[in-house]
Amino acid sequence: MNVTFPDDLVDTTGGRIVLLVLDGLGGLPLEPGGPTELEAASTPNLDALARRAALGLHQPVGYGITPGSGPGHLALFGYDPARYNIGRGVLSALGVDFPLEPGDIAIRLNFATIDAQGRVTDRRAGRPSDDENRRLIAKLREGVQAPGGLKIFFESEKEHRAVLVLRGRALSAELGDTDPQEEGVPPLPVTPLSPDAAETAQLLQQVLDRSFEVLSDEKTANALLARGIDAYHPYPTFESRYRLRAEAIARYPMYRGVARLLGMETQPGSRDDAESIRRLKANFDRYDYHFVHFKAVDSRGEDGDFDAKVAAIEAVDALIGELDIQPPDVLVVTGDHSTPSKLRSHSWHPVPVMIVSQWVRPDPGAVFGERACARGELGIFPAKDLMTLMLAHAGRLAKFGA
Amino acid sequence: MNVTFPDDLVDTTGGRIVLLVLDGLGGLPLEPGGPTELEAASTPNLDALARRAALGLHQPVGYGITPGSGPGHLALFGYDPARYNIGRGVLSALGVDFPLEPGDIAIRLNFATIDAQGRVTDRRAGRPSDDENRRLIAKLREGVQAPGGLKIFFESEKEHRAVLVLRGRALSAELGDTDPQEEGVPPLPVTPLSPDAAETAQLLQQVLDRSFEVLSDEKTANALLARGIDAYHPYPTFESRYRLRAEAIARYPMYRGVARLLGMETQPGSRDDAESIRRLKANFDRYDYHFVHFKAVDSRGEDGDFDAKVAAIEAVDALIGELDIQPPDVLVVTGDHSTPSKLRSHSWHPVPVMIVSQWVRPDPGAVFGERACARGELGIFPAKDLMTLMLAHAGRLAKFGA
Repeated sequence: MNVTFPDDLVDTTGGRIVLLVLDGLGGLPLEPGGPTELEAASTPNLDALARRAALGLHQPVGYGITPGSGPGHLALFGYDPARYNIGRGVLSALGVDFPLEPGDIAIRLNFATIDAQGRVTDRRAGRPSDDENRRLIAKLREGVQAPGGLKIFFESEKEHRAVLVLRGRALSAELGDTDPQEEGVPPLPVTPLSPDAAETAQLLQQVLDRSFEVLSDEKTANALLARGIDAYHPYPTFESRYRLRAEAIARYPMYRGVARLLGMETQPGSRDDAESIRRLKANFDRYDYHFVHFKAVDSRGEDGDFDAKVAAIEAVDALIGELDIQPPDVLVVTGDHSTPSKLRSHSWHPVPVMIVSQWVRPDPGAVFGERACARGELGIFPAKDLMTLMLAHAGRLAKFGA
Repeated sequence: MNVTFPDDLVDTTGGRIVLLVLDGLGGLPLEPGGPTELEAASTPNLDALARRAALGLHQPVGYGITPGSGPGHLALFGYDPARYNIGRGVLSALGVDFPLEPGDIAIRLNFATIDAQGRVTDRRAGRPSDDENRRLIAKLREGVQAPGGLKIFFESEKEHRAVLVLRGRALSAELGDTDPQEEGVPPLPVTPLSPDAAETAQLLQQVLDRSFEVLSDEKTANALLARGIDAYHPYPTFESRYRLRAEAIARYPMYRGVARLLGMETQPGSRDDAESIRRLKANFDRYDYHFVHFKAVDSRGEDGDFDAKVAAIEAVDALIGELDIQPPDVLVVTGDHSTPSKLRSHSWHPVPVMIVSQWVRPDPGAVFGERACARGELGIFPAKDLMTLMLAHAGRLAKFGA
């Protein structure tokens, strides 16, 4: 008998679980002897929680692997990111809150400029404004008819970026990019990468050809380049795997989109982090599992601003002071990956995590920081196993074997 | 979309990587309260590096598994030693600097003694001297003609050990040993372990039969026992996997041989460790990756001489003081396995490792030793993942997922 952990052991009853994700939480010291952003931050509420928590560091994808936001969150939700690999087109569609249906093909588009000979002269069409982007998308929606049997959806992203979704029967995403990745050459034709994809390639080529006609009177954005072509296939849902009614609270659509991919319920984006916390408290009894996402910590890390990242962590700490989550409920605070301000980008470094529970072996002098977590009872462990630990601490996992 | 880590993420640019391997570095205390060899050694240069390094312990093959030198090094190079298992015959051929070609069959030979009835009376022929070994090999080269279509190569190793290489078309290594593993019985015939190996078995039997005739006038070394029969198949190269131009600097041929198996460039053996360091400095800009091997630490551990192992570590520490490797370049210091002098052999204990990089969370009071490494930011991790970590620290890995 094969057993899948934790799915085959889940109980339908137990404590509630709250997962607070401070995006990009993990950091680095600016100098070898110095503190990280989290260590430098004054976090009285997180430190008090740390003294009744299991501490550790989670590894989002693997040793040395820097995760994007998609894999980082899937891992926290217990989905092995090497197996459940969200493609870029689908992630973009989720990021603009587009309601994907199973079998949809999602394609990232760049507005681009071509010359009279059809050669790409600017792969980003001079980075149009978001308003200009929306005007161009409206023009495409108006002018491009879908080929027979197909539905098509053009959606604005930001600047030169947009999304195209194809909906129809038996479509294939096994298509090469049309972006030539260099200037001075024409866009590539849509190329099927497998025999099954020949018909979809023809359909997409028709849509792109018609789009070029519609855009032909534009001065700069007179072409489209297609990239990251993916099919949307729903994943096994959170509820089917863990028997948890789950909600996601996030200000930014991409994080709500990843959560919806797993069947979590979402509301329109919170206006600010304080509203996210108020919603968590208001909905607390209506769900078994709450995922709350805080973006600013990552953004300040990507800005390369150590002090601003410290301040962003302190702001979340203050909000956490308003929560009072007690056993049998379980609170977890972590990040989806590290974003050290010294690196100005996501990184591969393991991420601090604490599980506040009655079933822990805490260090009475603990604080919440990278080095304290490295000495914690959880050690360094794969992020995809955090879900199992949360279920266990919430009393939601049966014994394995007699 | 399936992704192979780290191969699918490697960039072609980034810092240089230097891997210094102190063979058999890990140790044990002689008494429970005492220091290990590395902890007892005065290593001011290594300790200064540790304060700007990520520390940890790597597990060469698996919990409780004692690795040979082949698997120990393959793991450090990012090749899972459970999957890429160099056979003993091939390792012996590499160890005598024999230029193996793809499809060659490499066979370890023991000189042995048989009596008038053909029964083995000494499986090691009284352990002949190396000079005597070379005399016997010259005699075999002179007297044994290769069967039609085959090329054969006899090579001296040490004492009673030699190597035989068969080169020809469609040879198979699916052959049983002729060493009976006991005395008082005759050598076993060459036995094909699959139908495809029948022809190779006949050819090898002819070579051995003729060798016995050539050796029949010898008093002690009048027979050969064949063991560890392997085919040589090149592995995916280091450059193809990691986009690194790599060189190996080592005094002993086996380590250069393992590196060449992965396509690393090698020079003739250094005369001493100081010459190895001089070569590293002289070639520094010509390669992206340098592997430098230091043997003495392991040898003194195998001697069971705690103080001599301490002194061997201190000698390498003094040489490391001559290096000045700065970001974006990355320096890693570790061993391929542990060789505690108390055990007088390789062991299964995890091995101290440090990654000197600008992207670390160091402990300002750190020193380089087993117990400090056990508390380090890397934890205890599989040796095969060290390569991914080195690439990440050198800025040579792209982000996974969007």
